Amino acid sequence: MIGLSRLSLNQATVRHLPVAQAVDLCARHEIPAIGLWRDRVAELGLAESAAAVRAAGLAVSSLCRGGFFTHADPDARAAALADNRAAIAEAAELQAGALILVSGGLVPGSRDTALARRMIADAIAELVPVAQRRGVRLGIEALHPMFCADRCVLSRLGDAVDLALLFPADAAGVVVDTYHVWWDSGLPAEIARARDRIVGYQLSDWILPLPADTLLGRGHLGDGVIDLGSISAQVLAAGYRGYAEVEIFSQEIWDAPPDDTAATVRKRFTELLG
Amino acid sequence: MIGLSRLSLNQATVRHLPVAQAVDLCARHEIPAIGLWRDRVAELGLAESAAAVRAAGLAVSSLCRGGFFTHADPDARAAALADNRAAIAEAAELQAGALILVSGGLVPGSRDTALARRMIADAIAELVPVAQRRGVRLGIEALHPMFCADRCVLSRLGDAVDLALLFPADAAGVVVDTYHVWWDSGLPAEIARARDRIVGYQLSDWILPLPADTLLGRGHLGDGVIDLGSISAQVLAAGYRGYAEVEIFSQEIWDAPPDDTAATVRKRFTELLG
Repeated sequence: MIGLSRLSLNQATVRHLPVAQAVDLCARHEIPAIGLWRDRVAELGLAESAAAVRAAGLAVSSLCRGGFFTHADPDARAAALADNRAAIAEAAELQAGALILVSGGLVPGSRDTALARRMIADAIAELVPVAQRRGVRLGIEALHPMFCADRCVLSRLGDAVDLALLFPADAAGVVVDTYHVWWDSGLPAEIARARDRIVGYQLSDWILPLPADTLLGRGHLGDGVIDLGSISAQVLAAGYRGYAEVEIFSQEIWDAPPDDTAATVRKRFTELLG
Repeated sequence: MIGLSRLSLNQATVRHLPVAQAVDLCARHEIPAIGLWRDRVAELGLAESAAAVRAAGLAVSSLCRGGFFTHADPDARAAALADNRAAIAEAAELQAGALILVSGGLVPGSRDTALARRMIADAIAELVPVAQRRGVRLGIEALHPMFCADRCVLSRLGDAVDLALLFPADAAGVVVDTYHVWWDSGLPAEIARARDRIVGYQLSDWILPLPADTLLGRGHLGDGVIDLGSISAQVLAAGYRGYAEVEIFSQEIWDAPPDDTAATVRKRFTELLG
């Protein structure tokens, strides 16, 4: 029901490919958009990366990622803000649908989740005018609660929505990632509350058992337990018209030939959501 | 602020000890209560276990565990209910503060979390009259969202509170386990909403990095990132007057001499909450 014309491949799904090869892969498999990562963009060069995606006729659904705002040390905090300003400039140059923010875990030396959340709100408040000047939307992402301590204290979609609603809609929205939020009994209500604030939609499946590195416990769409059809319908009903980006962190998939991965991504998307 | 007179040691923290030795350990370390596990109780015998804890002057803060209600197959569902009726009888005989329920993950073959939650509610509705007749309180526990698929679809304390409030307070309440719920920005509000419904309080700490088996990613109080003082204050403010049960699943702690473990449990509890 989303349709192949809205499919995007996040570069992390084919982690070993540099930008040029990932762009070629998308073009070869008629995947119309790509989600890029900053380290890979830097490797090729920003202008060169922008030129490559345009030459291939691809849209850039998102740029990963900014964030990591939770620092006790003022210098570290200033450095994080500077890095995020650079990320906003890169997202503008790439015409990315959103700059995805992984906001940061607990402040070092602190057990106070509320303090970390306030620090994130303060940082985003500083970045919003920058994003507005550049025409970039910040995509605040909730991460699964198992990453609360060390990666992101925004653990429910609702935490991200609460934050986004503090700021103008042209600069701040939320990213819905099925892997991170599928378990939440309040998810339908939170997606509805995010109406017209969803600036990115990422898909992967939750597979069992979790691998040793829980960051990598993701599978191809349909291989796990997430009701992707239902969540996708809710995201569309909340007004989202952007790309659906398949982003899978999985050692097994990284070890597979990228053409096989792209073909499977396209096939599963068509079967489940096309 | 809870005080050593309310300390309990959950038997799982010293996993290798049978009931008699775990009871002796508590007595030796002046820990006034114990949380028991059904398999260990069965090993010694129910009447013998009840006699052992009474002879040692210990209270039984909880019995672990009932639950696992989510079955597509009617026979499996009937078997689960029968097992839970047996667990209620055992909890009554042991005069346990609560029978802890780990309610079950997704129904096999289904991706519908709401279906699983309804199945849990139906099962508890059947058990409540049994619990009332026996004078046992069912402790509905929310498990960390990383266990949603395979162990418990109640992922936030609020999910457990919603369910408990459907039933009379003498038969149904919630268990607050710091390891499972600490990350939730809505936790203070949900603990307050659980007023006079908290029938069990379990403590362990969230340590980093998570081990390969995420069930075992727990540490001694103070070794991790959870603000145990703050959560404990909220639990007390919500009217809880029962035991604070230290329950730590950790290979490292299981490998340690039980007397060292009990001494550390007591020491940390005193430092942080005594």
